[in-house]
Amino acid sequence: VTGLPPPLVVTMGEPAGIGGEITLMAWLRREAGLPPFFLIDDADRLERLGSSLGLPVPVQRIGTAEEAASAFAEALPVLHRPLAVPPAAGRLDPANAPRVIAAIEEAVGLVRAGEASAVVTNPIHKKGLYAAGFSFPGHTEFLAALAGDGARAVMMLAIPGLRVVPVTVHMPLRRAIATLDTAAIVATAEAVDASLRRDFGIARPRLSVAGLNPHAGEEGSLGEEDAAVVAPAVAALRAAGVQADGPVPPDALFTPRARAGYDAAICLYHDQALIPLKALDVDHGVNITLGLPFVRTSPDHGTALDIAGTGVASPTSLMAALTTAAELARNRAAASP
Amino acid sequence: VTGLPPPLVVTMGEPAGIGGEITLMAWLRREAGLPPFFLIDDADRLERLGSSLGLPVPVQRIGTAEEAASAFAEALPVLHRPLAVPPAAGRLDPANAPRVIAAIEEAVGLVRAGEASAVVTNPIHKKGLYAAGFSFPGHTEFLAALAGDGARAVMMLAIPGLRVVPVTVHMPLRRAIATLDTAAIVATAEAVDASLRRDFGIARPRLSVAGLNPHAGEEGSLGEEDAAVVAPAVAALRAAGVQADGPVPPDALFTPRARAGYDAAICLYHDQALIPLKALDVDHGVNITLGLPFVRTSPDHGTALDIAGTGVASPTSLMAALTTAAELARNRAAASP
Repeated sequence: VTGLPPPLVVTMGEPAGIGGEITLMAWLRREAGLPPFFLIDDADRLERLGSSLGLPVPVQRIGTAEEAASAFAEALPVLHRPLAVPPAAGRLDPANAPRVIAAIEEAVGLVRAGEASAVVTNPIHKKGLYAAGFSFPGHTEFLAALAGDGARAVMMLAIPGLRVVPVTVHMPLRRAIATLDTAAIVATAEAVDASLRRDFGIARPRLSVAGLNPHAGEEGSLGEEDAAVVAPAVAALRAAGVQADGPVPPDALFTPRARAGYDAAICLYHDQALIPLKALDVDHGVNITLGLPFVRTSPDHGTALDIAGTGVASPTSLMAALTTAAELARNRAAASP
Repeated sequence: VTGLPPPLVVTMGEPAGIGGEITLMAWLRREAGLPPFFLIDDADRLERLGSSLGLPVPVQRIGTAEEAASAFAEALPVLHRPLAVPPAAGRLDPANAPRVIAAIEEAVGLVRAGEASAVVTNPIHKKGLYAAGFSFPGHTEFLAALAGDGARAVMMLAIPGLRVVPVTVHMPLRRAIATLDTAAIVATAEAVDASLRRDFGIARPRLSVAGLNPHAGEEGSLGEEDAAVVAPAVAALRAAGVQADGPVPPDALFTPRARAGYDAAICLYHDQALIPLKALDVDHGVNITLGLPFVRTSPDHGTALDIAGTGVASPTSLMAALTTAAELARNRAAASP
């Protein structure tokens, strides 16, 4: 026992996507301040990938997570889990799907056992996994199920200077409006408030809650939901001691001055959260799952099958995910000693 | 006749708001490259406002627009139109509403007569005008009515590097979805295409059309409208020779790389257009009315009654509106010699 926190565990993600190459690139830039991590992946395919892309990354097979920390400075530590077939860049192969899922399960097991300090997931391709029996809308829901304690998993996306949390995520916009719900806004905001305290080390988090309609409804002349659904949620949050304001006119919520005034923006639909985030910074986005019994982050991009294997993918989002995961794990450990 | 274009005409806007002070401030910064302009306003109240805010602006009463150009270097030229009562900062007075409306009408008359090259409007407060019989949702519709030839007025908002055009504007989000219409998207985009050629001097404009749902509907699993309503509009535009692509996933439309690839983004609802614009730059937004028989711009902010008279308002958006108006008027004159 060195007193250092355990390393981060990184999942392989979809092996036909860019996960492997961006992880190799991130390791090459480890001196930019990256925390030690190890990968659950097929070591042979990583070596082939590094050679073909001219990425000089020594791959070190490790037997346990414990070996990763000392290995990390000189090599990329890998828990070798062979794939069924060698992956071809850009082409999903159902034969490998069970290994993709198994890597996530193993990573969660390691972090729950205290052998890893947090899970960082490479992107998966849901359609490619459904054939293997995967039945979740995405990583977030799968991880919540693995956590298994009925915790409400909440997706936060972060770039430097902005954290956003959509109350509804992958549903048609029409349905996001129809299902808008005071209780869901309150529950989401409370989960965010708790996580900002515990994981982000913010003693008195400030939340801003977006309105739904232009100008947050302009006193009802531009829509009823702001007054009928969102305002009561803000009132309930304040009554519960959460520092929240809103409903804020959506186009006023993301100005530079507004962003400086809150720790997280609670958004009502996918694009209300994602449009400003990606407009401001598409290279350093981190997806953070709040409400799990462990810390989990991922890069805020997909498998990028169209550019996989070409080496043009950027590791910056994964690097931000690694740095963020280590920071959150450190804060959470300090908060619950 | 000097060969120089006529000056710009600026309306007073709501005299209880910030219009007067930002116009005085803009004149003080005229050497930043501002085109000559004159104001239709109460010269006495401007002099009082300048004194009270310590803005050393000599006000010169002019008799005709023609006098403005030579006066502009040394003084702020004003077509003196006395208000009914001296305005109090932040307090709407219905007695002045008819003068606010008359200033807009006079400005339009001057630009249509060729005595001004474009109209730049200071913000109005609609509620304050309704009592005086004003019956339009805003400036844009009023100007279209004054233009009187049934032209389709289209609102564009611009900052350096991004132009956005919402197909629907001030209506509840639920209604914006319910009334989404292929023909309206096509008509709006065609007006934008024509204006980019004529007013912006862009020979081959490139338009990107936003989707409605997350991921532009993800092949129908996240909503039907992208395939059923938006895609046919893009197809019709292309068939008509307009360079358009889409439906683009809304959160992908405003990344730095995406923005570099089009001249204007056609958006489906108010906040889809306004959120990214204001997140990126809230200080230099210009509102441009396309489709009128004259050039009209305005700053992209309101009357700011809460800070009027304090001198903290910034003239940068008005300055951008002035510069843009002069540029568009120049391009339009060159296009129709």
